[in-house]
Amino acid sequence: MARADDDLKVATSTEDLEDLALRDDYALNPAFVEMVVDAAERADSKRLGELMDALHPADIADLMGFLSGDYREALVPLLAPDVLAEVLSELDGALREDILEHVAPGVLAAAIGEMDSDDAADVVDDLEADVRGQVLAQMSDVDRAGIEHSLAYDDETAGRLMQREVLAAPQFWTVGQTIDHVRQAAEDLPDLFFDVYVVDPANRPVGAAPVSRLLKSRPDALLSDIMESVTEIPADMDQEEVAYIFDKYHLISAPVIEPGGRLVGQITVDDIVGVIREESDEDMLALAGVSDTELGATVFGVTRARFWWLFINLGTAILASSVIAIFQGSIEKFAALAVLNPIAASMGGNAGTQTLTVAVRAIATKELNATNVLATIWRELAVGLLNGMAFFVVMGGVTFVWFHDPLMALIAGAAMIINLFAAALAGILIPLGLDRMGFDPAASSVVFLTTVTDCVGYFSFLSLATLVLIHH
Amino acid sequence: MARADDDLKVATSTEDLEDLALRDDYALNPAFVEMVVDAAERADSKRLGELMDALHPADIADLMGFLSGDYREALVPLLAPDVLAEVLSELDGALREDILEHVAPGVLAAAIGEMDSDDAADVVDDLEADVRGQVLAQMSDVDRAGIEHSLAYDDETAGRLMQREVLAAPQFWTVGQTIDHVRQAAEDLPDLFFDVYVVDPANRPVGAAPVSRLLKSRPDALLSDIMESVTEIPADMDQEEVAYIFDKYHLISAPVIEPGGRLVGQITVDDIVGVIREESDEDMLALAGVSDTELGATVFGVTRARFWWLFINLGTAILASSVIAIFQGSIEKFAALAVLNPIAASMGGNAGTQTLTVAVRAIATKELNATNVLATIWRELAVGLLNGMAFFVVMGGVTFVWFHDPLMALIAGAAMIINLFAAALAGILIPLGLDRMGFDPAASSVVFLTTVTDCVGYFSFLSLATLVLIHH
Repeated sequence: MARADDDLKVATSTEDLEDLALRDDYALNPAFVEMVVDAAERADSKRLGELMDALHPADIADLMGFLSGDYREALVPLLAPDVLAEVLSELDGALREDILEHVAPGVLAAAIGEMDSDDAADVVDDLEADVRGQVLAQMSDVDRAGIEHSLAYDDETAGRLMQREVLAAPQFWTVGQTIDHVRQAAEDLPDLFFDVYVVDPANRPVGAAPVSRLLKSRPDALLSDIMESVTEIPADMDQEEVAYIFDKYHLISAPVIEPGGRLVGQITVDDIVGVIREESDEDMLALAGVSDTELGATVFGVTRARFWWLFINLGTAILASSVIAIFQGSIEKFAALAVLNPIAASMGGNAGTQTLTVAVRAIATKELNATNVLATIWRELAVGLLNGMAFFVVMGGVTFVWFHDPLMALIAGAAMIINLFAAALAGILIPLGLDRMGFDPAASSVVFLTTVTDCVGYFSFLSLATLVLIHH
Repeated sequence: MARADDDLKVATSTEDLEDLALRDDYALNPAFVEMVVDAAERADSKRLGELMDALHPADIADLMGFLSGDYREALVPLLAPDVLAEVLSELDGALREDILEHVAPGVLAAAIGEMDSDDAADVVDDLEADVRGQVLAQMSDVDRAGIEHSLAYDDETAGRLMQREVLAAPQFWTVGQTIDHVRQAAEDLPDLFFDVYVVDPANRPVGAAPVSRLLKSRPDALLSDIMESVTEIPADMDQEEVAYIFDKYHLISAPVIEPGGRLVGQITVDDIVGVIREESDEDMLALAGVSDTELGATVFGVTRARFWWLFINLGTAILASSVIAIFQGSIEKFAALAVLNPIAASMGGNAGTQTLTVAVRAIATKELNATNVLATIWRELAVGLLNGMAFFVVMGGVTFVWFHDPLMALIAGAAMIINLFAAALAGILIPLGLDRMGFDPAASSVVFLTTVTDCVGYFSFLSLATLVLIHH
């Protein structure tokens, strides 16, 4: 605390504070966070205001994640509506809901009025029903209609991601006419836009030109001469599909259309960057059995969320143990079997996870589809078999050195071939099957996989041992 | 094959082929891929050319991934230099290297001349030394100098991601002057740009204005009046840091500076979208023990890459088994121990993976840092302890029902508390420790984690059982 106090005395100007706020890697400086906590403890609103002025809204949003609930609430009233708008747009999950509960409806209405229509709809969607009514009542008719229009689209669709403000122009306009139009209509256009959409009389996009090309072209050039073909996004498209298209074709913005082809809005790449990261992270967390609702949840919330994944896994572990129970008689005669038994199962789990993870990513990025599915299955089985043979040698060797028993070495090695092959089979077929049946392959395939690799691992080793060592 | 032949007869015009090429989800249509394979088998270059004309270069790049090597090589000579340039920019890994080996240096030089400087440097970097010399010799001095300049920066840094062409203007210029400059200098400007960087006389960025704001502003407005502050990217910054900054501040483009602050290029968000997906995917694959060099590798290449991960894991599995070996005597007396023994270890592995995955993501997104590290550790330990107590009850109950032995039930339950707590401890401390020591926490922490959870799981259960059941 002494260090923070020193900093507090030294760093008085906003510029000094700005320098202090972030580390070289653009993450918040822990010393700065301490200064905020210190000012919040002393309820020093003036100082807190100075500290907030030194931060970009995105950094204020990060800061919220580092503060306890009381301090968070102390900060909110200090933020101007436009800053609060940006901070709320950056946050999500339990953290945003917590903050929303502590903002007066009037303040919230002002902040939401400052947001792009996509962010505004997201925030309103997070409000409790009664607060929502109060907030909407305090907004202008235009803003309210915009939000209600956005909310008419399902969550995680293009319609929810889009902003309704776009720059559109008929194809017979010249570059000069278009630029004049932009200057006159500046108020009604989005803050930022990257393409002008060229539309037909029915307001259907027929092409697009990047703004930089508008600038480069002669003022008398026709839009129809400088435009390129355009990738239209149906309003009901899933956001994961939208992200795929943006990534694949390196789009900066794309027009969103309703059934019939009418232009209703645009999606810009800055909204998509977040979606791409989220979808990738969701897959990664889902593979590990963590739900993405954890963010900002309490210890009990996190415990409960993880409990159910572990509970299901306990079921599979008990199932696998019941396979061992079949061979309890063999283990009584040969306790060494219990020592070696977990190894083949563990290796199968690891090898299967390799295959599974590659398959889940390939399905998500559409690198794996009907064209190459058979080739991919064969490739994975071949890899499983080859590594099985390699570990037949390695595991056989280790077992022989450890137990000086050539038969035991053969059995431990053979179990490795069987289980690495089974792991490859399960690792590729389970995610493909789940995907074919319309389930998310990231969310549930690991449970099925470990059931297979544990049961096959225990069964192959113990049944071989029983056949060869006991009944021999 | 009959179906593809029918399609072949029906789909003759380029428009028909374009409709057929992609499915509704914008992935390549397997029927279209079959048509390509069919034409390649018949060595029908004219037909292949028509088929390629129906595809966006990004789709041609996807197609390459679905074709065997011979057919891939047949396609390359059919592509115009600008299309080949885009296809090569889209590809990476073993697939690109394979194609590069089969393109004549002259064709390659023409294609590379069409690329942005960042993509050009990437491709040249992938060439064998002798081919590289031949290709560079056939390029213009300007292009060659640009590529050599890019290659002077390390791989995966901002300097390698940037393109050198930028729109920069002094702050005393008006909007009108800037637009006139753009029209005159159109040739020297990048294809697409989103911001004009305002520079001082030493060519250091002092601000930036989005192109859309240029269009909206009155022609006599000064750049210094419409510009905003700008986030400068040092040329030697790691691309992961760059992606973090773009994502956090929703940047569309950013100026790249050299030591001293001179503007040397710009990075645009379309390059960053790829980086964000790659870095997320890399973490996910690294957690599963898969290296990202697998793409396009042969069966033997994949087998070898995965072998080493499995080999290391075999080491930890044997280490864990040696813990079981300590208690071989107990198992001889009580074979039921071998049945229940793997359960606590398996649960610890799953619980630890949950904690570990959350920690790895939080470290990567900088949500976990010095400010909240203690709170996060306590939270994870609390979650581990609470779930440990929950599974004490569940596992104790299951064991009692299964073995009708209250002491065994107590032991199995107690092992659950111990191992879920150890799993939480290892799951949070291992990635934090690796990160602190400068290692990638995604790449190696799973091995350490499973070593802890297996050894602690076996030891806690078997040692308790030995103490209570055997020596009692």
